[in-house]
Amino acid sequence: MTKKKPTILVVNDDGITAPGIKVLLEEMKKLGRVIVVAPDGPQSGMGHAITIGKPLRLDKIELYEGVEMYKCSGTPVDCVKLAVNRIFKGEKPDLCVSGVNHGLNYSINVLYSGTMSAAVEGAIEAIPSIGFSLDDFSHGADFSHCRPYISAIAEQVLTNGLPKGTLLNVNFPHIDKEIKGIKICRQANGHWIEEFEHRLDPYNREYFWLTGQFEWSDRGEDTDVFALKNGYVSIVPTQYDMTAHHTIQELNSWAFNFKS
Amino acid sequence: MTKKKPTILVVNDDGITAPGIKVLLEEMKKLGRVIVVAPDGPQSGMGHAITIGKPLRLDKIELYEGVEMYKCSGTPVDCVKLAVNRIFKGEKPDLCVSGVNHGLNYSINVLYSGTMSAAVEGAIEAIPSIGFSLDDFSHGADFSHCRPYISAIAEQVLTNGLPKGTLLNVNFPHIDKEIKGIKICRQANGHWIEEFEHRLDPYNREYFWLTGQFEWSDRGEDTDVFALKNGYVSIVPTQYDMTAHHTIQELNSWAFNFKS
Repeated sequence: MTKKKPTILVVNDDGITAPGIKVLLEEMKKLGRVIVVAPDGPQSGMGHAITIGKPLRLDKIELYEGVEMYKCSGTPVDCVKLAVNRIFKGEKPDLCVSGVNHGLNYSINVLYSGTMSAAVEGAIEAIPSIGFSLDDFSHGADFSHCRPYISAIAEQVLTNGLPKGTLLNVNFPHIDKEIKGIKICRQANGHWIEEFEHRLDPYNREYFWLTGQFEWSDRGEDTDVFALKNGYVSIVPTQYDMTAHHTIQELNSWAFNFKS
Repeated sequence: MTKKKPTILVVNDDGITAPGIKVLLEEMKKLGRVIVVAPDGPQSGMGHAITIGKPLRLDKIELYEGVEMYKCSGTPVDCVKLAVNRIFKGEKPDLCVSGVNHGLNYSINVLYSGTMSAAVEGAIEAIPSIGFSLDDFSHGADFSHCRPYISAIAEQVLTNGLPKGTLLNVNFPHIDKEIKGIKICRQANGHWIEEFEHRLDPYNREYFWLTGQFEWSDRGEDTDVFALKNGYVSIVPTQYDMTAHHTIQELNSWAFNFKS
């Protein structure tokens, strides 16, 4: 019995020329037929944004030999939607992988991340999906230590599938940290302490640049933040059902007071 | 004993001149001191996007008498971050309300919605937060039937607070439907069947417009979709912990196969 080669959709949010997506598509080529649909420029921090107010461009390009590639003018989530509708035309890929992101997407950063939102969109489209991110923001980030983990995790997802309505959020420690293994984690609670840099433009009008520090009070040893700090690859099973089911009972006891 | 008047942050994604935000700030004025920070133009479908690649503008404007208002060049989430950091300067408001959105944000649309993402950001900032949306996309939407519910729900949140890490996603039926009451719901599972309209520009290059149909196979009578179809105001308690906790045990049984 010969198994059909799986079809793998590769997306990212750093743009189609980012080094991280090259690493990812090279690893995926070992596992199946690869189709890349990625933004034509950086789309970091785009979260789950979609483009509804203007048209989208989707152009086939040749960037790496033997890989079918398309650049898209939209967001990471647009890329997944266009891939499913215009390229796969309803015949879903067997796997959707996003990244490898230049920079961590642990804790609540799953919400801001275009990389993770593309993987979430893959899951909504009922495609087994994984987002990969590295603890290194730089363009020249070294991804070599991630490679064996990327292929091993993707292989497991191709073999086992994923529970319905879920996807994986995988984060790698920086190359300078010795990797101790993989930990299945929960998303740490945390938040950004914003620091908007205040500046004046050449016309003396003020403007702001968003910067900030990530803080977490969640000291749980079962979190992604803890795993990464301690040299582990973190895998957080992630879902797009955002219902706070545990609070439904409490809310049902509220007495609303209507004034007419 | 006199209680201090609560401070209420009002945001939206349809832009600061949208009729929906006027309804919301008018209702909030009855409950406390209102500060509005909203995008200077439409930001629908922006999800949890933040602006990191370019500067942000934040300008005080006078639009409605007696209301402190700021327009922001960024996304709905940027508005919340700028409000907390530059306007409240760390002294958090007592409530953050977002909307009223022109159009429903039920089911998975919580992910695409700028309205809901602004409320999620409020919750991340530890502010009790509510997103409001109406089943009417039109600019001339009639919000009058929503008003008593908006103030009653906001009052309850000011009185009771919300469980940590959660917020409310409130959706209203269209004015043409008689409202039967409020239902506390879970987020229905569903997805969009994309239909990209294919067109040619004046230079004969192709482009696409995103359109689509929302579909849900989830027939549960405890969902927001069911409540709205049946004339109820839906309230989904929503959380930003996206961990699929129920799958951690299964993933811990996976045997990863590393090739070096």
